Amino acid sequence: MAKSGKDNKAQARLPKGFGDASADALRAQWRMIETIRRVYESYGFEPLETPAIEYTEALGKFLPDQDRPNAGVFSFQDEDEQWLSLRYDLTAPLARYVAEGLKEQKLSLPFRRYAFGPVWRNEKPGPGRFRQFMQFDADTVGTDNIAADAEICMLAADTLEALGIPRGQYVVKVNNRKVLDGLMEVLGLGGDAKAGQRLTVLRAIDKWDRLRHEGVRQLLGEGRKDESGDFTKGAQLQADQIEAILSYLGSRYAVMGAGENASGWSASFGAWKKLVGGSDNGQAGVAELEQMASLLWAANYRYDQISFDSSCVRGLEYYTGPVFEAEITTQIKNEDGQLVRFGSVGGGGRYDGLVERFLGTKVPATGFSIGVSRLQAALAALGRSDAGATGGPVVVLVMDKGELPVYQKLTQTLRTAGIRAEMYLGTAGMKAQMKYADKRGAPCVVIQGGDERARGEVQIKDLIEGAKAAASIKDSKEWREGRPAQVSVEEARMVEAVREVLARHKA
Amino acid sequence: MAKSGKDNKAQARLPKGFGDASADALRAQWRMIETIRRVYESYGFEPLETPAIEYTEALGKFLPDQDRPNAGVFSFQDEDEQWLSLRYDLTAPLARYVAEGLKEQKLSLPFRRYAFGPVWRNEKPGPGRFRQFMQFDADTVGTDNIAADAEICMLAADTLEALGIPRGQYVVKVNNRKVLDGLMEVLGLGGDAKAGQRLTVLRAIDKWDRLRHEGVRQLLGEGRKDESGDFTKGAQLQADQIEAILSYLGSRYAVMGAGENASGWSASFGAWKKLVGGSDNGQAGVAELEQMASLLWAANYRYDQISFDSSCVRGLEYYTGPVFEAEITTQIKNEDGQLVRFGSVGGGGRYDGLVERFLGTKVPATGFSIGVSRLQAALAALGRSDAGATGGPVVVLVMDKGELPVYQKLTQTLRTAGIRAEMYLGTAGMKAQMKYADKRGAPCVVIQGGDERARGEVQIKDLIEGAKAAASIKDSKEWREGRPAQVSVEEARMVEAVREVLARHKA
Repeated sequence: MAKSGKDNKAQARLPKGFGDASADALRAQWRMIETIRRVYESYGFEPLETPAIEYTEALGKFLPDQDRPNAGVFSFQDEDEQWLSLRYDLTAPLARYVAEGLKEQKLSLPFRRYAFGPVWRNEKPGPGRFRQFMQFDADTVGTDNIAADAEICMLAADTLEALGIPRGQYVVKVNNRKVLDGLMEVLGLGGDAKAGQRLTVLRAIDKWDRLRHEGVRQLLGEGRKDESGDFTKGAQLQADQIEAILSYLGSRYAVMGAGENASGWSASFGAWKKLVGGSDNGQAGVAELEQMASLLWAANYRYDQISFDSSCVRGLEYYTGPVFEAEITTQIKNEDGQLVRFGSVGGGGRYDGLVERFLGTKVPATGFSIGVSRLQAALAALGRSDAGATGGPVVVLVMDKGELPVYQKLTQTLRTAGIRAEMYLGTAGMKAQMKYADKRGAPCVVIQGGDERARGEVQIKDLIEGAKAAASIKDSKEWREGRPAQVSVEEARMVEAVREVLARHKA
Repeated sequence: MAKSGKDNKAQARLPKGFGDASADALRAQWRMIETIRRVYESYGFEPLETPAIEYTEALGKFLPDQDRPNAGVFSFQDEDEQWLSLRYDLTAPLARYVAEGLKEQKLSLPFRRYAFGPVWRNEKPGPGRFRQFMQFDADTVGTDNIAADAEICMLAADTLEALGIPRGQYVVKVNNRKVLDGLMEVLGLGGDAKAGQRLTVLRAIDKWDRLRHEGVRQLLGEGRKDESGDFTKGAQLQADQIEAILSYLGSRYAVMGAGENASGWSASFGAWKKLVGGSDNGQAGVAELEQMASLLWAANYRYDQISFDSSCVRGLEYYTGPVFEAEITTQIKNEDGQLVRFGSVGGGGRYDGLVERFLGTKVPATGFSIGVSRLQAALAALGRSDAGATGGPVVVLVMDKGELPVYQKLTQTLRTAGIRAEMYLGTAGMKAQMKYADKRGAPCVVIQGGDERARGEVQIKDLIEGAKAAASIKDSKEWREGRPAQVSVEEARMVEAVREVLARHKA
């Protein structure tokens, strides 16, 4: 005998870290993607889609994200025993595509491409941490022109505004790795031997938004014990090194509502030039930012859209120049009910190593990646997600199962008129059909019993009005006699009457 | 030393059977999908997206397609050693979703859902045979109402017409497995012991379109040697069995241009009723088709859209009732230059076993699956693909690299006016910039040298007109003086002048 409830049946479940997307979430996502696409196309970016599977060797064995050393990829062997992997981002496949295109002389540079689609990480899933998620990337490959970086920031700002996020509720932060590198250099933290220490410094700076002066000071020095009592070892810098970095962070330009001309941006550039002093790298970094500022200014972007911000470091080791981060600045309630800044929805920067693994030469590139579900969550939090815009279908009830063609015809008449409509397909009675229509979010149902058919009429019952009316009517006799929100019309007027209901609920 | 040309560099290539999608192909695909979605939504279908990865156990270990016994799936073990697989179709994940929803009482039936996305098959790739390809499915779950099947056929016809395929260039073929089963029964081919023989008969019937009477006769009998000399073993039927099946195939209703009322469809139903004689199953099958015919007729569908066709069998063993196949009937040239019918772009049918593996109960369902790239190829062959509708961007040339903000501003002015535009980002000179603009498919370029800037003017050069003019002008002096297709305008009139060029090429 079978043991307590166990049998041979397969279990209907998903592996951890994977999820199904509902109709509303999908429609909201598609609308969002369509808007992003429209903006990216307007900048001359071209779409590219690469497959989910690549040679593991072509993707590179490791995720470039040094902040997540446990990050893994889904891999399996092909029939000829070569290792294949699911892509873990959209940059590695772009590198393969560009290297292939250059080798076969099919690709001309500069090349602007956008791509979106799922990526997979074989990591321990957690709350809000999925093993399949969607990215939307834009990259400009084959130019070291700093105008390409400025353009990426403009693109990010335009995208957020096109999605309905007003100025003041977002900011695109910009910084330059060369400035940070220059600062480290003059502080005696240059050279390969100190790479680890530099990374710890970057991580500390990255926490500025949350920990501010005192917390970052600890992380740059001995270390810091957080609220839970966990101790994070610090970068072990000396007091003067710590002060220089804190001074750099303190000189970041205030994000919003500032000055009337480019001098607002210029102010921080002056401070940074002093801090990086004799470092050529550092001076070059500030000069690049100055150039970006003049390009952004000429194209009419202002402080309330794009901000040069010394605390923006981006965790990835591979960035070599300007780095960007798009943030939603609006405060929203977190799980504990506290108001917190929504935070990052995307980021990127300049990197030179794109195709080096394949071709041995450097090809400069700059890019930006949007976390699609993160941005979708931001839009929802800001009330900018139009998930509900596609209403449920009009449901044509089936009063007489022997006369299906009659109801099919009514349904098709609605569809032909451009109205979303379905005929009830189940076996339930009138009451359950009404319940089904409610669940489907139907604006109204169409009813035709034998009597109405004989008279050439249909009944249109407005479900939304009906629900309101039902709440205010106590007497079921009154209900039956009044037939609130229900009208009889000639069959020839059905489309018109349904359109009236739809118009009522749109208003 | 490195051996002849070999080094440590990674190879930039894709595994066999995978491909990148170009910008034009992607745009065409997205437009096609948007159209299909619009039709499916109008029928009340809701979108669902399930992840690429499922438990292997939940997908089922084998592809249900018995015609391709070598079909495999990409599988790998999770950290807890459970097997995971990439989905090989969209039906198996739907089954898991429905079973989960029913078990947790989150799903109410009937449930109409559509889904599209990549699926993966770990098979030997070949020409036109990929290991990642896209499907677009619609299924109605939880009803045995034959109206659901009629609706699927209507949906298929509407979709093809919405995509611009006119009546007469497509047909949705309909048949019913019960009719075939009934016929086999009366021919003494019923019972489990003869399942293999029945499958061989189905495969023979499936070849009717290509081989017709004589070829199918051989495949029903001893077997058939094809043009290349390969011998396919036949179903070994007796002469009277063969004649009955050929008579059934001969009674299929002519596809197009027929009768003025439902009697055209009825004619074949009468013949089939006689052929299935005493088989209850067979009679039920014909009755279902008759009911579909009356539903289709009421909804205004005719013979030139939907055809009841005895040769339509669909290879999958799991179908249990009506089966459908959408075909493009137009003849196109194949690789050898011969005119051939384009053929199937999608198919489906009724199946009861959807969630049985999970819940132990049968849940009736019917569905339809479109092969996305196959349909896209059909649209291209019929000249119905609007791949080129998104033109290349206007390219703003950079005549003076010290003045990037000036060109950035011009570019942004175009974009703000809703014109797709990019600033040249490379380092090349004027001539190479023009070449780049040509490659980008730019309708025109915007040029502003120092002199023009001093005068507050820009030059607009129409590349398409320019190319035409160049072809007719032989003298380079005449060319320089005439400056064909090139105008100087005040900067304030740039947008207007570019719009004129765009309008010229749209016309």
